[in-house]
Amino acid sequence: MEKRKIDIFDTTLRDGEQGPGCVLTLDSKLNIAEKLDFMGVDIIEAGFPISSPADFKAVQEVSRIIKNAKVCALARARELDIDTAAEALKQAKSSRIQLGIGSSDIHIKHKFNTTREEILRVAHDMVKYASKKVEEVQFFAEDAGRADNIFLAKMVETVIVAGAKVVNLPDTNGFCTPFEYYEKIKFIIDHVPNIHKAKISVHCHNDLGMATANTIAGLLAGADQAEGTINGVGERAGNTALEEIIITLLIKDLPISTDINPVFIGELSKMVEKAMSNPVQANKAIVGKNAFAHSSGIHQDGVLKNRINYEIIDPAMIGVELPDLILTSRSGRAALKNRLEALNISFVERNFEQYYEQFLKLADTKSVVAEHDLINLFR
Amino acid sequence: MEKRKIDIFDTTLRDGEQGPGCVLTLDSKLNIAEKLDFMGVDIIEAGFPISSPADFKAVQEVSRIIKNAKVCALARARELDIDTAAEALKQAKSSRIQLGIGSSDIHIKHKFNTTREEILRVAHDMVKYASKKVEEVQFFAEDAGRADNIFLAKMVETVIVAGAKVVNLPDTNGFCTPFEYYEKIKFIIDHVPNIHKAKISVHCHNDLGMATANTIAGLLAGADQAEGTINGVGERAGNTALEEIIITLLIKDLPISTDINPVFIGELSKMVEKAMSNPVQANKAIVGKNAFAHSSGIHQDGVLKNRINYEIIDPAMIGVELPDLILTSRSGRAALKNRLEALNISFVERNFEQYYEQFLKLADTKSVVAEHDLINLFR
Repeated sequence: MEKRKIDIFDTTLRDGEQGPGCVLTLDSKLNIAEKLDFMGVDIIEAGFPISSPADFKAVQEVSRIIKNAKVCALARARELDIDTAAEALKQAKSSRIQLGIGSSDIHIKHKFNTTREEILRVAHDMVKYASKKVEEVQFFAEDAGRADNIFLAKMVETVIVAGAKVVNLPDTNGFCTPFEYYEKIKFIIDHVPNIHKAKISVHCHNDLGMATANTIAGLLAGADQAEGTINGVGERAGNTALEEIIITLLIKDLPISTDINPVFIGELSKMVEKAMSNPVQANKAIVGKNAFAHSSGIHQDGVLKNRINYEIIDPAMIGVELPDLILTSRSGRAALKNRLEALNISFVERNFEQYYEQFLKLADTKSVVAEHDLINLFR
Repeated sequence: MEKRKIDIFDTTLRDGEQGPGCVLTLDSKLNIAEKLDFMGVDIIEAGFPISSPADFKAVQEVSRIIKNAKVCALARARELDIDTAAEALKQAKSSRIQLGIGSSDIHIKHKFNTTREEILRVAHDMVKYASKKVEEVQFFAEDAGRADNIFLAKMVETVIVAGAKVVNLPDTNGFCTPFEYYEKIKFIIDHVPNIHKAKISVHCHNDLGMATANTIAGLLAGADQAEGTINGVGERAGNTALEEIIITLLIKDLPISTDINPVFIGELSKMVEKAMSNPVQANKAIVGKNAFAHSSGIHQDGVLKNRINYEIIDPAMIGVELPDLILTSRSGRAALKNRLEALNISFVERNFEQYYEQFLKLADTKSVVAEHDLINLFR
């Protein structure tokens, strides 16, 4: 199948860091940015320079060290924001400003207290202004997920006329289903006459748990760039987890590819988790500590017969060593036998049932039966 | 809009407990089951009786205390499993056995080492056998997500002939996109001649982060029952998080409803988290501690103007008190001003910019600025 290559836009350092308690030190930001660059991310959004002196500095330093990726800085649709972002990006080899304004009637009325016409005017003028200050401008139509599609198409057309090279249509509040988001992106691509002059970007939030599926839906509808964060960190329920997008595109037979080397995912996930002091839950897809762990008897037995029965992802793909089967009261005979053999604990086949019963009695009293428990029990 | 009422099938006590380290005590199981019943869950899967004495006992005790929900027990497609499940369910007011066998060629070949014909024969015979032992039989076509749709349709038809009242088509390995899963469920509903004699159930896993979206897709395609767990716990990356399904169906304009009272979700989530010693990550949708927290300046300003700008879910809906805006280095002037006023810290308007700069300097050194930090700084 011919695959269309899309851009991966990482915003762990900007939108990810907006998660409460997720503030990163400058050193952590530089380490994470370097690793992202090394992994092959196309664009790194490094911060929001006008928001604080530390953020300005971070964008400056990331710009200085990044070798391959484009460095992006956030701005509101205001000249001072744009000037500050452009200043912070000065040393980048390749740079982009992302600026935007609300696109839903809810935001236009309740956040900006203005009209659709005025919003279009500001969007146009600020994109035009920014285009003179930086290599490339990305416009974000905030709250596009709840925006009227006909007005949104008008806005996209307007900012492309003004010079935007990328237009991001975020589901800011995580409100869409994949079917709705697919239709929205498809509508824009089908109805904006100058759409071929810009790339469309998808940026989703996880408030209803659908950010990954929505991002994939947007890409299938024709978007050229996927935005997200490592571990899905970010404001409220967070952003699209980039590791889920990268692995989905690798293992599924979809007509889309990336330039990412996934083998760094495991390490990057741990770096971000530690630097943000924001623990990843055990059952988080791809990077949770149980993501590849089988503990029930039916599954362990199936995996022992052939890993393909219950594993669609090879943990080695993301640089993680294959974990052992975990023994619990849900484990079956096949797993116990396998582990006893691995520990060189010998048993007479016809007595195995007694071993299994003893094991279950112990297992019903503990959450996990460790190797030393087995040794104590059977040696 | 006319809404179709679907059943909510909770498997926190069975598939959820299969998560490594998630073993529950009998007391915890009874407490969780009672709360699920109170919340309005239609079916509670209480365990897998043949797997261990503790599981048998748990199904027995849950059966004894549950007043409204149907109690379900898991079995493989074997007589002894079915007999044991039926025995454990004896005291239930209303009961169901869920039994199943592999439906994908991968499982048929690599797990059961048999043929499609033989699998159909066993499925038929065991459903027929179980139908005599219990009020109602649910059949699960394991690994339906990777199964050939034509064979799957044949299997569904066969087990309905044998007496299955519910047929569950699980995406056991979390392999589908919502588009694929929608097509699969739609194909089965459109191609199984006796489909009107049974309900179709959807059961998804989160290996690629798409369990919630897939479940919603399956329901939109016509499924009658959604399965999942509280907090999305379960084997590997876990099951569909039921709280995400319940809230999605409540706040979105979809033609589907449930009988769930969502106000118990917050409390149930905490009960399961504690009982399983399995922490929910801060950015988990609906139930994470940051799920409703805004910390960036743009968002805090928007929320202060009108919550509707950045909140699609009212936390009170799930019984959670509205959290305050969190102050960090990403916070803007609007949030600082709001908090100073709330703390009765008076300031002269024309000096506010100095206050904000002092605040940012402090904020750049800490992950979160607490109320007492503000008091120390400004009083």
